[in-house]
Amino acid sequence: MTSAIIVAAGRGTRMGPNIDKLFLEVAGAPVVAHTWRLFDSSACIDDLILVVRDGMQAAFDQLASRLRLRKAFRVVHGGKERQDSVWNGLQALPAGATIVAIQDGARPCTPLELIQATVDAARKTGAAVAAQRVSDTIKQSDDGQRISRHLDRSSLWAVQTQQAFQVEIICRALGAVRDQGLRVTDDTAACELIGQPVRPVECHRTNPTVTWPSDLPSVELLLRKE
Amino acid sequence: MTSAIIVAAGRGTRMGPNIDKLFLEVAGAPVVAHTWRLFDSSACIDDLILVVRDGMQAAFDQLASRLRLRKAFRVVHGGKERQDSVWNGLQALPAGATIVAIQDGARPCTPLELIQATVDAARKTGAAVAAQRVSDTIKQSDDGQRISRHLDRSSLWAVQTQQAFQVEIICRALGAVRDQGLRVTDDTAACELIGQPVRPVECHRTNPTVTWPSDLPSVELLLRKE
Repeated sequence: MTSAIIVAAGRGTRMGPNIDKLFLEVAGAPVVAHTWRLFDSSACIDDLILVVRDGMQAAFDQLASRLRLRKAFRVVHGGKERQDSVWNGLQALPAGATIVAIQDGARPCTPLELIQATVDAARKTGAAVAAQRVSDTIKQSDDGQRISRHLDRSSLWAVQTQQAFQVEIICRALGAVRDQGLRVTDDTAACELIGQPVRPVECHRTNPTVTWPSDLPSVELLLRKE
Repeated sequence: MTSAIIVAAGRGTRMGPNIDKLFLEVAGAPVVAHTWRLFDSSACIDDLILVVRDGMQAAFDQLASRLRLRKAFRVVHGGKERQDSVWNGLQALPAGATIVAIQDGARPCTPLELIQATVDAARKTGAAVAAQRVSDTIKQSDDGQRISRHLDRSSLWAVQTQQAFQVEIICRALGAVRDQGLRVTDDTAACELIGQPVRPVECHRTNPTVTWPSDLPSVELLLRKE
């Protein structure tokens, strides 16, 4: 049984104060509704867990009644950091879940075949993350004033929050992070901590996350095409 | 005096065989025409050099008669690698040029204020490159099969081919690359070779390069808005 956790507990402070990027309307529905619909329609997902900010439960329940959803879902509260939110989502998994897909609520254009591919890769290898080969040239600058190091882009991958794991592995990995009082930027970093290899699953299509207001027009275009 | 070199000598093999991405039509004109127009209208650029593939000179002359250009330009032939093309462009600079902006022909949406800002920064510091803070999480995977290293994105910049240099510095830097028989992926890497600091100039807007056919719709949208 495969569950999906949609992490929708962040405020997206880069958008500006008092703007919840997840509820910005794009292509006729809030950003997070598109993400939700994706996983609701994915053939490899059995049920969903939405992790939301305290006080937002009613907004998500309203959204659910507006969308025509086919799959069972639960809404749980997020934690302080993203890793705490994911942890809360993991605690709410149904007993039979062996694989879990984890997705950022602000990434509404993920191709269905990519969800399938990361779930398949996680089943085989334990942990998988959607990733794109980096096409830009990446440099390191520690002070923002001068470039200190050139990085070889042929080995660089931009990983996305579309990830999938064997449930036992991600629980053990995030458990270790919590036990050691660490803070990780993404769930694959937690896997690295327990020595669990993570398989990159190449995404050939644009799969943006809504971070800036200027991201919306191209996201709209992508959603309208689907 | 400030010149611009537009590097338009690559074939863009990632587009597929026999497709010249520079001549794909977008927003009513070929990709490279938009790039050309940008620098033609930039207040800080005095004249232009286009570096083109062997046999493409006529296509660019035709393009010039179609566009309403205000500034003098020269068309010169590219070399085997990008660095050879830039070198050929540098050899064709007018005698009075002290600053040169170098732009990839496939990057048609660069904001005019960014061109100005990199030219200003190059005048002050010697070398400057347009860059965006990396918003994705970047991982290293040497074999593409498993992720080997997590990189701290707060120090990572995606540099773009919108760059500017004091002419003397970039000539010395690329000269050193040629003398040592090296191959560099971008002109700022040549500066690193001679110990010349490079200033990142932050770009806050989307400034895509046309690499894949799927890049065209969002590029179209950006160009139509301007």
